[in-house]
Amino acid sequence: MLGSTHGTLTTDSRRARAIACGERPGPAVHGRPAQEGDLDVSGRPLHADVPDLDHFFRPRSVAVIGASDAEGRPHTGVTRQLADWAERVGARLYPVHPSRPSVFGLPCFPSVADLPEQVDLAVVLVGDPLPVIEELAEAKARFAVVFASGFAETGPEGEAAQRRLAAAVERSGVRLLGPNTNLNAFEHFRDDLDGPAIALITQSGHQGRPVFALQELGIRLSHWAPTGNEADLETADFLSYFAEQPEIGAIACYLEGLKDGRSFLLAADRAARRGVPVVAVKVGRTETGARTAASHTGKLTGADAVVDAALRQYGVIRVDGLDELQDTAALLARAKPPRADGVVVYSISGGTGAHVADLATEAGLRLPVLSEARQAELHQWIPEYLNVANPVDNGGHPVGDLRGRKIIDAILDDPEVGVLICPITGPFPPLSDRLVRDLVDAAEHTDKLVCVVWGSPVGTEPAYREVLLGSSRLATFRTVGNCLTAVRAYLAHHRFTTAYRSPFDEAPRTPSPSYRKAQALMRPGEQLSEHAAKQLLRAYGIRVPREQLVTSAAAAVRAAGLVGYPVVMKASGARIAHKTELGLVKIGLTSASQVRDAYRELTDIARYEDVSLDGVLVCQMVEQGVEMVVGVTHDDLFGPTVTVGLGGVLVEVLSDTAVGVPPFGEEQARDMLAGLRGRALLDGVRGRPPADLDALVEVVLRVQRMALELGDQVAELDINPLMVLPQGQGAVALDALAVCR
Amino acid sequence: MLGSTHGTLTTDSRRARAIACGERPGPAVHGRPAQEGDLDVSGRPLHADVPDLDHFFRPRSVAVIGASDAEGRPHTGVTRQLADWAERVGARLYPVHPSRPSVFGLPCFPSVADLPEQVDLAVVLVGDPLPVIEELAEAKARFAVVFASGFAETGPEGEAAQRRLAAAVERSGVRLLGPNTNLNAFEHFRDDLDGPAIALITQSGHQGRPVFALQELGIRLSHWAPTGNEADLETADFLSYFAEQPEIGAIACYLEGLKDGRSFLLAADRAARRGVPVVAVKVGRTETGARTAASHTGKLTGADAVVDAALRQYGVIRVDGLDELQDTAALLARAKPPRADGVVVYSISGGTGAHVADLATEAGLRLPVLSEARQAELHQWIPEYLNVANPVDNGGHPVGDLRGRKIIDAILDDPEVGVLICPITGPFPPLSDRLVRDLVDAAEHTDKLVCVVWGSPVGTEPAYREVLLGSSRLATFRTVGNCLTAVRAYLAHHRFTTAYRSPFDEAPRTPSPSYRKAQALMRPGEQLSEHAAKQLLRAYGIRVPREQLVTSAAAAVRAAGLVGYPVVMKASGARIAHKTELGLVKIGLTSASQVRDAYRELTDIARYEDVSLDGVLVCQMVEQGVEMVVGVTHDDLFGPTVTVGLGGVLVEVLSDTAVGVPPFGEEQARDMLAGLRGRALLDGVRGRPPADLDALVEVVLRVQRMALELGDQVAELDINPLMVLPQGQGAVALDALAVCR
Repeated sequence: MLGSTHGTLTTDSRRARAIACGERPGPAVHGRPAQEGDLDVSGRPLHADVPDLDHFFRPRSVAVIGASDAEGRPHTGVTRQLADWAERVGARLYPVHPSRPSVFGLPCFPSVADLPEQVDLAVVLVGDPLPVIEELAEAKARFAVVFASGFAETGPEGEAAQRRLAAAVERSGVRLLGPNTNLNAFEHFRDDLDGPAIALITQSGHQGRPVFALQELGIRLSHWAPTGNEADLETADFLSYFAEQPEIGAIACYLEGLKDGRSFLLAADRAARRGVPVVAVKVGRTETGARTAASHTGKLTGADAVVDAALRQYGVIRVDGLDELQDTAALLARAKPPRADGVVVYSISGGTGAHVADLATEAGLRLPVLSEARQAELHQWIPEYLNVANPVDNGGHPVGDLRGRKIIDAILDDPEVGVLICPITGPFPPLSDRLVRDLVDAAEHTDKLVCVVWGSPVGTEPAYREVLLGSSRLATFRTVGNCLTAVRAYLAHHRFTTAYRSPFDEAPRTPSPSYRKAQALMRPGEQLSEHAAKQLLRAYGIRVPREQLVTSAAAAVRAAGLVGYPVVMKASGARIAHKTELGLVKIGLTSASQVRDAYRELTDIARYEDVSLDGVLVCQMVEQGVEMVVGVTHDDLFGPTVTVGLGGVLVEVLSDTAVGVPPFGEEQARDMLAGLRGRALLDGVRGRPPADLDALVEVVLRVQRMALELGDQVAELDINPLMVLPQGQGAVALDALAVCR
Repeated sequence: MLGSTHGTLTTDSRRARAIACGERPGPAVHGRPAQEGDLDVSGRPLHADVPDLDHFFRPRSVAVIGASDAEGRPHTGVTRQLADWAERVGARLYPVHPSRPSVFGLPCFPSVADLPEQVDLAVVLVGDPLPVIEELAEAKARFAVVFASGFAETGPEGEAAQRRLAAAVERSGVRLLGPNTNLNAFEHFRDDLDGPAIALITQSGHQGRPVFALQELGIRLSHWAPTGNEADLETADFLSYFAEQPEIGAIACYLEGLKDGRSFLLAADRAARRGVPVVAVKVGRTETGARTAASHTGKLTGADAVVDAALRQYGVIRVDGLDELQDTAALLARAKPPRADGVVVYSISGGTGAHVADLATEAGLRLPVLSEARQAELHQWIPEYLNVANPVDNGGHPVGDLRGRKIIDAILDDPEVGVLICPITGPFPPLSDRLVRDLVDAAEHTDKLVCVVWGSPVGTEPAYREVLLGSSRLATFRTVGNCLTAVRAYLAHHRFTTAYRSPFDEAPRTPSPSYRKAQALMRPGEQLSEHAAKQLLRAYGIRVPREQLVTSAAAAVRAAGLVGYPVVMKASGARIAHKTELGLVKIGLTSASQVRDAYRELTDIARYEDVSLDGVLVCQMVEQGVEMVVGVTHDDLFGPTVTVGLGGVLVEVLSDTAVGVPPFGEEQARDMLAGLRGRALLDGVRGRPPADLDALVEVVLRVQRMALELGDQVAELDINPLMVLPQGQGAVALDALAVCR
């Protein structure tokens, strides 16, 4: 089909633009400059250094600027907590105060300049940190923490103050955590727990509290970075650092906004390359959330569809609730890589098995039917009339004796099985106590993942508190929902990292030959005509129909002869919208006289509608295929992004689009298409041939190249529709819109 | 558009048919006959009696058939539990055993015939219950419970045994619970808890265990009905009975299958009329779940889309996890009706507020922005720079003193506010202890709903265990997700019951005049021709295009003159599928010569394709509108159901359909349409006029009438497409398929 109007990508992308452009709380404050020369063709860094945060988390010396031990003073409690923490991590503590001789028995120094050594970390308690930063620079401190609030989170004045602080920090050589942060980094982490740890990054101290409390359930936590307003050190810095610490099994994040899109992607890439799982709550699914979050830490929440795409591209596991963050991070931190992706549900009740198998299948897990031989083995211990195909229902009694452990071992022994899920709906000793002990013991002797759902809402039962939580080799959940979320994330994470190839390794650094051709077509501040926009596509190797721009009826007839009948004719001009609705498109013209009539009619309508034309396009008529839209949208966090969706009126209604955040490779482009709800249309329905998916992927990648090379010069670029022909026949951009900046 | 092929409704409905027809585990065993004469036109009951279960749950006398007190005998434990229970409920207990003189000190009776009175309840412990049922009938017992398994859940032989048992019960006048049930009805329910109670119905004992355990968290449970295989008493009987008990605030169900669709609908209708919330887990979202559940209790799980529609029509709240069942039922049981639907999120942290507000908005809750005046009031106690618009962020400190309670009261005082949600991510006395006490106290003094999310994963904190769980006026949750699920269900339940009108009051009892006309068209065992199928639609007042069936080219030309040019011509015959693909449809014919040519071509193709024709249809060409599909599908649980969906290739890909389970009224038909993902198409997109929604609703209701009147005579009935014209212009069935039984 021909003649669709352009310019309307999707509701989602429009909303994305509104959020990204309209709700920006203030100019982003950028961190350290990237390594010289290591930039992609859009000028964005391809590399970020990992700050050496060892001296932040395990300093040898700590100065407390504004320390106090006076009863009732606000800084006294903080000073005490810092002194305790310094003692635990083995750091020398130097209180700094102009008038106190000592604080908590430690000699106090009147100013930063008087400190006896270059300190690793300075904690700044005073209300105006700006002069202190300059003193710390003089004293060559490595890190500073500023708790004071009243910066970007409070509005324009605070933003200005934060910019001044950031500038001072950048000049100083000191790396800063804060402002508007808190003591979370200096909490008491339990050192008696074993297994790989969770490291935590939060942009709100309260929101990290439940993850911190996991230590009371026996789950190890190694670090907590409360990043505050991120005037200097940002989430990405901690993410990169944590990804390189061998003791860390998973990184849990509570994010409200991102300071800089590319820094975050580079950090997530580092975690993906090293196979370290990152689990994140990211606020901003709705405008209410985005607005509130922006006013909380003064950071950009970002257009949610774009943030979501970015997280997915780097395998960051996004969850909604803090409970899911806890459960998923805990599982991913501690479980070994899966030996198989098959999941078995094992229970002492057929009802429980049916229910959990139903939910697990709905959640996308694979529940293989156990082999005949395996079932026969299980029926040695389980009565013949019970179902052991998967779910495995033991009917209850076998768990009370030796058979219980044999059943578990037989299931775990199956090469198809990577995960065993045992839901226990309530305590009923002696059955459940023995079952729980057998599960723990089996988990200690296998590399496979054993999950238990302790379904009792009470949670004070010894089988739960003492036996289940006592083992770090077994994952215990309180709800089936959270168990399935975590298991799905676990299997997806390992699939993802096994196949991961960093897009930064292949990102283009220099402009393509197309770039020069494109430059000749740009008209700053103007919308290009359809014809010119198509020339731009051609410059990047994207196929457009044969067409000619003509300015007389006679020329139109000649053009039709060259283009080949039947032809389509469209009014062409720099600012025409809604061509079809205005009658400015004529399709299926088969003769010279029809072409002549069409030319007259189009120019008449244009005159009546007061539309200025640069001519009439005489275009090749293209066979039917699948209509898609492909476009470039600017995102304030990530720069130009690529959107692809199904075209046509129905999908406009359903907003069925996917976003790609450059740089991305071919596999990621294919993932975008696979995520479309109406993707079956591309495979061919109702006997239609499958569409040329390779050609579509190629167009998406070429549009990405345009986005990277022209991103800052193009305000809007849409192909709508892109007609994807049957396999082997390519894809043709039937209409295009380009608006130059 | 014309000439779409028929016969393919949607993937969903096809799967529904497969499950309903192919996986039926055995013939359903029906309960008591309905009251004579109170039947709808399809012969299904419009009324069901509520069994008087007072004598079951609070019997005056209980016989235990097979009682034992001998050490090590399997029935000894059961007998002891029954004796304890009988004592608690004040019932006389009669052990029955042929050879024991006494059991637990009570005189034992050698047989049922020897019982000293007509017992209310007989608990049958013996393995073969059949002879006992006959003796109980003689002895005029009211109720019997059979624990024995080995019936429908085990396969064909068990099904036969269950049919024999059911037949014996039906003859006996005794009402039976079971077989394959358990002691859950005779558990120890706490009588020291206040507030309205939850009543529980389960088809698996283990699955009810977490709801039962809610009593340990202070939530009252009054009844538990473990329905087992439902040879006689079924879920619907308990549902109806519970709906009439004033002490019951909500009914929680764990369902694997339904014995009889209509009985369930009548029971759900009773609860809806009385405004009693029903919260249900229903297994069978996936085929894995359906298959496993069917093998567990031997009941039909039903086609999930149909079950889901039935639950929605009667306001039954469907949840996935047992944790959601607990939390939602507990909230609905105890909360008073909402005074407003506005929700305020109140927290001591801006981050927590942003996060929860985001999730609440995403969940569809309405978070009104508080008025300027209200915000000014809150700023008396909350620093000016904090956001109090909603979410309300108090920054922490105000909760430590008198301000804390004032803030809560000011929020609850707002007429826009019906629900206050306060997420607390962790314990940090003194703030959280005081906050929790203030919340509990405020909840005790308001009719509005106060919800607290205690986010600590530990759950042993006194503020949680003692203070929050100590109040029945406040709803406490462990996760934000479950809180939002429950609050959404609470608001939806009250909206639903306020607007509820029972469809049974208006269900047709006698055939319409259309019915006789339709009878003349039926051809048992045959597929009707398109023309005949359209006559059937016309009989029910559904508009079809003007058309004539002709058998010669000359007649075709005459018909075209009568119908009016342009016309469409289609081959017509009893068994033609894929008309368009075969070239058996010609559209847009504008002259006699085109009609003649088309006639020849159609008959030629039919000859070559070996398709037998009863003629050629010459049809009016219908203007463009929105293509829909409307059809009737047979469901084994509910009988004929009506499906409506968007037509066209895209929606075939997306399976965007809604099901209605008769009887339903106009409002429910509108709800079906509102639930379609592509519903915006009906409102008009891209400048198209809105479609004639009233006409579409009318067609859906007329098809329902056909379903009810002809349901047992029609194997399949589809209108595809139904062209819905612009508002005021009606809807036309362009093609139809009808297969008679």
